[in-house]
Amino acid sequence: MKTAREYIDSLRDRDIKVYIKGELIDSDKVIDHPFIKGHVNAASMTYALAGSEKYEDLMTTTSHLTGKKINRFTHIHQSASDLVKKVKMLRMISQKTGTCYQRCVGFDAMNATYSVTYDMDKALGTEYHERFKRFLLYVQENDLMIAGAMTDPKGDRSLRPSQQADPDLFVHVVEKNEDGIVIRGAKAHMTGMVNSHEMLIMPTMGMREDDADYAVCCALPVDAPGVIHIFGRQTNDDRKMEGEIDQGNAKFGIVGGECLTVLNDVFVPWERVFMCGETPYSGLLVERFACYHRQNYGGCKGGVSDVVVGAAALMADYSGYGKAGHVKEKINEMIHLTETLYACSLACSCEGKPTESGAYFVDPLLANVGKHNVTQLIYDIDRLAQDIGGGIIATMPSESDLRNPEIGKYVDKYLKGVADVPTEDRMRIGRLIENMTGGTALVESMHGAGSPQAQKVMYSKLSNLEKKKEFAAHLAGIHSDKSEEE
Amino acid sequence: MKTAREYIDSLRDRDIKVYIKGELIDSDKVIDHPFIKGHVNAASMTYALAGSEKYEDLMTTTSHLTGKKINRFTHIHQSASDLVKKVKMLRMISQKTGTCYQRCVGFDAMNATYSVTYDMDKALGTEYHERFKRFLLYVQENDLMIAGAMTDPKGDRSLRPSQQADPDLFVHVVEKNEDGIVIRGAKAHMTGMVNSHEMLIMPTMGMREDDADYAVCCALPVDAPGVIHIFGRQTNDDRKMEGEIDQGNAKFGIVGGECLTVLNDVFVPWERVFMCGETPYSGLLVERFACYHRQNYGGCKGGVSDVVVGAAALMADYSGYGKAGHVKEKINEMIHLTETLYACSLACSCEGKPTESGAYFVDPLLANVGKHNVTQLIYDIDRLAQDIGGGIIATMPSESDLRNPEIGKYVDKYLKGVADVPTEDRMRIGRLIENMTGGTALVESMHGAGSPQAQKVMYSKLSNLEKKKEFAAHLAGIHSDKSEEE
Amino acid sequence: MKTAREYIDSLRDRDIKVYIKGELIDSDKVIDHPFIKGHVNAASMTYALAGSEKYEDLMTTTSHLTGKKINRFTHIHQSASDLVKKVKMLRMISQKTGTCYQRCVGFDAMNATYSVTYDMDKALGTEYHERFKRFLLYVQENDLMIAGAMTDPKGDRSLRPSQQADPDLFVHVVEKNEDGIVIRGAKAHMTGMVNSHEMLIMPTMGMREDDADYAVCCALPVDAPGVIHIFGRQTNDDRKMEGEIDQGNAKFGIVGGECLTVLNDVFVPWERVFMCGETPYSGLLVERFACYHRQNYGGCKGGVSDVVVGAAALMADYSGYGKAGHVKEKINEMIHLTETLYACSLACSCEGKPTESGAYFVDPLLANVGKHNVTQLIYDIDRLAQDIGGGIIATMPSESDLRNPEIGKYVDKYLKGVADVPTEDRMRIGRLIENMTGGTALVESMHGAGSPQAQKVMYSKLSNLEKKKEFAAHLAGIHSDKSEEE
Amino acid sequence: MKTAREYIDSLRDRDIKVYIKGELIDSDKVIDHPFIKGHVNAASMTYALAGSEKYEDLMTTTSHLTGKKINRFTHIHQSASDLVKKVKMLRMISQKTGTCYQRCVGFDAMNATYSVTYDMDKALGTEYHERFKRFLLYVQENDLMIAGAMTDPKGDRSLRPSQQADPDLFVHVVEKNEDGIVIRGAKAHMTGMVNSHEMLIMPTMGMREDDADYAVCCALPVDAPGVIHIFGRQTNDDRKMEGEIDQGNAKFGIVGGECLTVLNDVFVPWERVFMCGETPYSGLLVERFACYHRQNYGGCKGGVSDVVVGAAALMADYSGYGKAGHVKEKINEMIHLTETLYACSLACSCEGKPTESGAYFVDPLLANVGKHNVTQLIYDIDRLAQDIGGGIIATMPSESDLRNPEIGKYVDKYLKGVADVPTEDRMRIGRLIENMTGGTALVESMHGAGSPQAQKVMYSKLSNLEKKKEFAAHLAGIHSDKSEEE
Repeated sequence: MKTAREYIDSLRDRDIKVYIKGELIDSDKVIDHPFIKGHVNAASMTYALAGSEKYEDLMTTTSHLTGKKINRFTHIHQSASDLVKKVKMLRMISQKTGTCYQRCVGFDAMNATYSVTYDMDKALGTEYHERFKRFLLYVQENDLMIAGAMTDPKGDRSLRPSQQADPDLFVHVVEKNEDGIVIRGAKAHMTGMVNSHEMLIMPTMGMREDDADYAVCCALPVDAPGVIHIFGRQTNDDRKMEGEIDQGNAKFGIVGGECLTVLNDVFVPWERVFMCGETPYSGLLVERFACYHRQNYGGCKGGVSDVVVGAAALMADYSGYGKAGHVKEKINEMIHLTETLYACSLACSCEGKPTESGAYFVDPLLANVGKHNVTQLIYDIDRLAQDIGGGIIATMPSESDLRNPEIGKYVDKYLKGVADVPTEDRMRIGRLIENMTGGTALVESMHGAGSPQAQKVMYSKLSNLEKKKEFAAHLAGIHSDKSEEE
Repeated sequence: MKTAREYIDSLRDRDIKVYIKGELIDSDKVIDHPFIKGHVNAASMTYALAGSEKYEDLMTTTSHLTGKKINRFTHIHQSASDLVKKVKMLRMISQKTGTCYQRCVGFDAMNATYSVTYDMDKALGTEYHERFKRFLLYVQENDLMIAGAMTDPKGDRSLRPSQQADPDLFVHVVEKNEDGIVIRGAKAHMTGMVNSHEMLIMPTMGMREDDADYAVCCALPVDAPGVIHIFGRQTNDDRKMEGEIDQGNAKFGIVGGECLTVLNDVFVPWERVFMCGETPYSGLLVERFACYHRQNYGGCKGGVSDVVVGAAALMADYSGYGKAGHVKEKINEMIHLTETLYACSLACSCEGKPTESGAYFVDPLLANVGKHNVTQLIYDIDRLAQDIGGGIIATMPSESDLRNPEIGKYVDKYLKGVADVPTEDRMRIGRLIENMTGGTALVESMHGAGSPQAQKVMYSKLSNLEKKKEFAAHLAGIHSDKSEEE
Repeated sequence: MKTAREYIDSLRDRDIKVYIKGELIDSDKVIDHPFIKGHVNAASMTYALAGSEKYEDLMTTTSHLTGKKINRFTHIHQSASDLVKKVKMLRMISQKTGTCYQRCVGFDAMNATYSVTYDMDKALGTEYHERFKRFLLYVQENDLMIAGAMTDPKGDRSLRPSQQADPDLFVHVVEKNEDGIVIRGAKAHMTGMVNSHEMLIMPTMGMREDDADYAVCCALPVDAPGVIHIFGRQTNDDRKMEGEIDQGNAKFGIVGGECLTVLNDVFVPWERVFMCGETPYSGLLVERFACYHRQNYGGCKGGVSDVVVGAAALMADYSGYGKAGHVKEKINEMIHLTETLYACSLACSCEGKPTESGAYFVDPLLANVGKHNVTQLIYDIDRLAQDIGGGIIATMPSESDLRNPEIGKYVDKYLKGVADVPTEDRMRIGRLIENMTGGTALVESMHGAGSPQAQKVMYSKLSNLEKKKEFAAHLAGIHSDKSEEE
Repeated sequence: MKTAREYIDSLRDRDIKVYIKGELIDSDKVIDHPFIKGHVNAASMTYALAGSEKYEDLMTTTSHLTGKKINRFTHIHQSASDLVKKVKMLRMISQKTGTCYQRCVGFDAMNATYSVTYDMDKALGTEYHERFKRFLLYVQENDLMIAGAMTDPKGDRSLRPSQQADPDLFVHVVEKNEDGIVIRGAKAHMTGMVNSHEMLIMPTMGMREDDADYAVCCALPVDAPGVIHIFGRQTNDDRKMEGEIDQGNAKFGIVGGECLTVLNDVFVPWERVFMCGETPYSGLLVERFACYHRQNYGGCKGGVSDVVVGAAALMADYSGYGKAGHVKEKINEMIHLTETLYACSLACSCEGKPTESGAYFVDPLLANVGKHNVTQLIYDIDRLAQDIGGGIIATMPSESDLRNPEIGKYVDKYLKGVADVPTEDRMRIGRLIENMTGGTALVESMHGAGSPQAQKVMYSKLSNLEKKKEFAAHLAGIHSDKSEEE
């Protein structure tokens, strides 16, 4: 397993093309760029904590391929307990980073691809699963960070891939030859991509027969020829170019450091191709990935919310209203919502069942329920944090003002809360609340792992409404053929 | 194990005093009274389904005392899996009854008493636990239904028991002698009491030193001398005296058939006394019971909500708007809320841990979170059902109108929905929705297993807010002694 | 103007056919039937208060037809101030009755018909408006109570009137002759119908060309030959046959006493026909009526909620937790929600504008917003009331138990709250909360004046979304032809 | 009246001390600073639109002092209609700016001071009111922009002003002499201060006898000697230093441009002192100001939300899902919430009543209800906008990327939505949504015009709970002396 140091060093070896605010960044300085550094720090925690004895049980496990100890982020779940530990691991890391550490996306992509390639091979006689296992072995042995790459730009959402005016708005195969395939398109919202080693590309939705070129799953290095990453803007990203306090969470930044990854006729050898045209399996892969990924949100956002709760409570303490009844009521409500999210992630995990491949899969209905709650309850939690935080989180002078020799004394004097807490501490907590409850952080809770409607669509599919109708008809004394026998 | 028939017959042997609407009911006809019959039917399902092969795994298990197969409702949880199966069992029975089958209260009371008596004996050298095991053995061998009896009337809620103007507003010991104790007071909201065999009395809250007489836990037959049950009114209870349709759920009725149980100087032999003055353990017993009981609500109310969802969907189908977008959206929202409740119950169960006695205990924070969600989300679910159900559920003519030779034809003609569904079926579903979403049913979701504030109070106690503050301080760069080490 | 006494006496003169629970009630005893008496009492308050000096300004006004003082419920609004006074009048009467007094439906029907007939005459050269004014004069002179009759049974909601398997599922004209028309069908959910003098029939929705027979508006006595009323069931209606306390609101009952009114080939003379086949005006009439009626809900439900707030606060006082922080917080939330409803009704009223007829019309968007809030916030208010009310509102023994010589003393002893409040008072408040927050009362808030989706549909129509898009495009710097000029 | 040009020019004449990010800005370039320019543009709209014939009725009125035409923002409300027009004016300007134009704070401060000084003079024989009228005349004649200055830093919120460790945490009088007073302290969250002419200082809460030095109300130029303004940070403020698109609303910016205004022993002549030690009137002034200011929020935030609704709808159109059922449902919900806010502002205005001074005052309960709704519903509106907006609003590449010759084509290609809408337009709308729904904008809705608890506290005071209890007791048949007579 890699240490955090080794992880960071290994990223320097890449020849990666990353643009930030219109500028191409030197490949070996990408991870030092102020916009990116925090995300690297967050991701590196997935390595650092794996080396800690205290968290060994959560952070590491035994490879079912090799029997060796591996970082859990490269593991294929072998039990419901593995699924539960994943959730607890995520909550724990979030409590320490207060933000996204990005590595779950590839983790989930690998688990999804593992079982779907198994099913494909079994049904179609392909050899994708063995290929994928070799890739997985490579990932485990080298303790790699993989970017899961699913979301296409999608253009006109009312049209399917092949109906778009521009056929490249979904990633597709433009050439197949003896050695491999050539793909074109882009993947949007790519979390952790710029500080990963490889990306695992998956189709963005279930494809129909005539969209066969779009049913493609494959792995490639993030610095493969033809790949360009355009880093997205985040709320208050420019503050990272300055001092520390105004950043809120100066060490780990905010959310996942997403980019738009452009794939300009990129070659992928067959050894790394795990689906190529098998349209009936594209939807299954999406669903498997989506459920694994939705499983996470009560864990990682649960941990993030723990920090938000703590920050709100500290702000109340620092300002002298920590003991007010309505504040305690709000803190309790935040705790209630946080634990509700966590409960959903635990529930879909402990109800996990083995797929035919042996890999364990979460309960899909409950995984969707959990993510859907995140799209609403995080907004409630953050609203309550802003309520407790006070207007100061929207109007606070800058760190430069505090440091200014002329007026620093006024900032220090007038932003003081209770007498025995340094003003700077109160400012720091205010900035942390600002950082964690606004803009990018909220939107990520909404759309990460699928927009709200994506979960709602799954309810119709997974909840067996007809059976519920039978229960009702039976109790109402309606006697029909379909009625539930006792 | 008893069959449903045997359960019902065994109830006839009691010499029980039950008053309904001011009248004393003949002891052997209590369970035939229209107000009570449905509740007996519901409770009898806990016996009937235990005899079904299909549900054997959920409904039965092996006694840790005797190694014999027993009804799960008499079991002491021996694993987290037992806790999970309890939740699934509850949801399943609710789907078949659409209402409360009451037997979980005593089930939870026994599990709570089991572990607390163990702790008491260990700390105090008492012998309550062995006594309790003998009582438990008796319950298991005879497959008895036990009423859990916790809630005292409480009088002036701003005063503690011994401060009340009337000392009897909490059950207390008024005499101790060689053979046993004499208790006086009452227990309110007694679910399933009138169709149980025994009651297990517990204190209603943590008692202080000077309320020692109120720290009493003991078991006695529901027909012991000095016991009087006054049956409570339920929404639309009078409809049970008439035809079938207007009742909504004619077979199983509505909620738990609660009563006020008066204890007029009732004698309890020492062999059935499990706490008597050990005030420090009264609060622990309340907490254990409360958490076990709160665990249930995502199971039983989840199953009840399944029926409500099905009923709303059928009403939409029967009325011709089953395919409307906004109706499907609402059905999905109901499903979302139902599964959220269920997820909480699963989560607190799979996170169950053994107590020192060996009995497994739920995760207390998550159990409280689950119940607290019930106090809100059931209202949302029922509101949506009433939305979909239409105004007809508030203004529907009676079954007598439908049966009337003069006007029955008009009721049949004008309450018709889609052409191929009999009007009577549409009326039946309307009445089922009315029955399940109004009055008593809602209030029970609010206050059963503890009022909302009771859960909120537990959050402060169980959620480790100080630790959350440390997470935040650490990320904000605030360096203090308390700061979270990495 | 009639006194309350005169109103009640005048109802005895009718030869009305009312069925209750399958029985035809003697025409002259209809208003004495326990199921109906409370509704008559509530409606009579609209007469009684009009005679009170204290409420003269709200309850009475000057007829624009005759210049005479009339009961406001027979008035055509002549100013925005009239619209505002209507809302205040409704809130005031609700505070005194805690329930529906029914008379607003006909009031709104008359105002809607007044302006639409004016528009029709102007456009089509008909003479409906003059006819209607004569009817109105008759109503004002005799201070009549009019039942507004809009909602048809509607059968299969996915089909239009003429597409139904049974053409009678919407009221339609089956014959026209020299003297008048003959109509057939039924009207559902008829509030106050059985204690009104006349009904004013309106179409239930906008009709298309081929549904011309269904575009009918006319007035007829509630006891016209061929008319049969089948009284609907309400929550706990049977309790009205017994004592007082269990009814909750023994004097005024609960909600509006709705019935299904069957029209078996009923003759209406031309003098009372105000629309007959003019399909383009049917939708306009529905919309006008709906908006006037939706205007009311923040007034009448505001007043009802005032009572619910007061009842919850009293229950808290009587039980000893009136000063608890979380209870005060909940009371404040209930007040907040109540005033939000009221604000919407005031707003749509003060923004009222004159129609061409001179009658003032509410702001239609805001009227819909108000009613839509009622469909949600009343559920929140009632949930909070049940929270504060406690489990006792679902399990309370009956009044008969309290009166019973054997056990009355136990009910009195154990249902006691704080020492100086009689137990009976506490029971009365508990029953009032039960009465006002469950079943029929909730459903009426949902569906009265139109189901939630009916309001949502209006938003698309009334909110000028295109204009909002222009605002946004302009600020975003998007320059198109449609862009908002400054 | 000033034109927009004249307003801006007049600001250049000031000798004002403003610090931004630790730097003192040249006094004559303050309004050109990129952080401030947008706020000036927004405020200047209050001048520009007053010169437009189209908005004359809303934007201008007649001075009750001089009979001359004045800008409404300098007016003392002379009728309920004035109050209603204020709300409509605010909504209209917000639709054009999408942000805060700041001038209402001083407007409300002047109206509050007007009536309270009248009351003081009448009761105490002081001459504050005449002084204030002279100040008002000066404001009206010169069409000045006044910053309302109420909120003190407050330090430890559990302590009153004179109990603080630092007595300056609330503004107070440190010297009185023949010519005037000297004040010290600071005012926080000062909206529009840096582009105003004068500030009107008010106490931040009701003061007790021993806090008499803190009961001070007075006016002074924003560039008076001893005054220093430290400009607060806003979400994404640094983007104002760059191109246009990433700013979202490049012309008008975001929210109000708040600063911390430090008052270092500032002299104020008696002619501008309107309260000095009259503690009983400090609370009244706060309450009057708070209610006037809370009145606004359904107007200004209503208009802002109109833009947000439009932006979300455009994003849906541009991305091809504008016609999806669930999107339309969400748009309708946003409209519903927006109009609910507006309704509250209208309601408290049309219910306005004259104070003894002749100035009209809003209904205080309804004004609080309106603001309290803003603290919740804006979060819901913005959540829905982010839902519709899609993940792109959190991960969009920068304008520089779009302009970059190497990769601009990829940004243009892959951020495309429907084929006929330029990618840049879609980016612009995405940025507008980001700008309007995150960070500062949300917090301002929460805390502007008082934090949520401030409104809740008023409910207890204003809602006459005792009367509601009487209504309930009366209907429940509880006969006591207090019972409501009919």
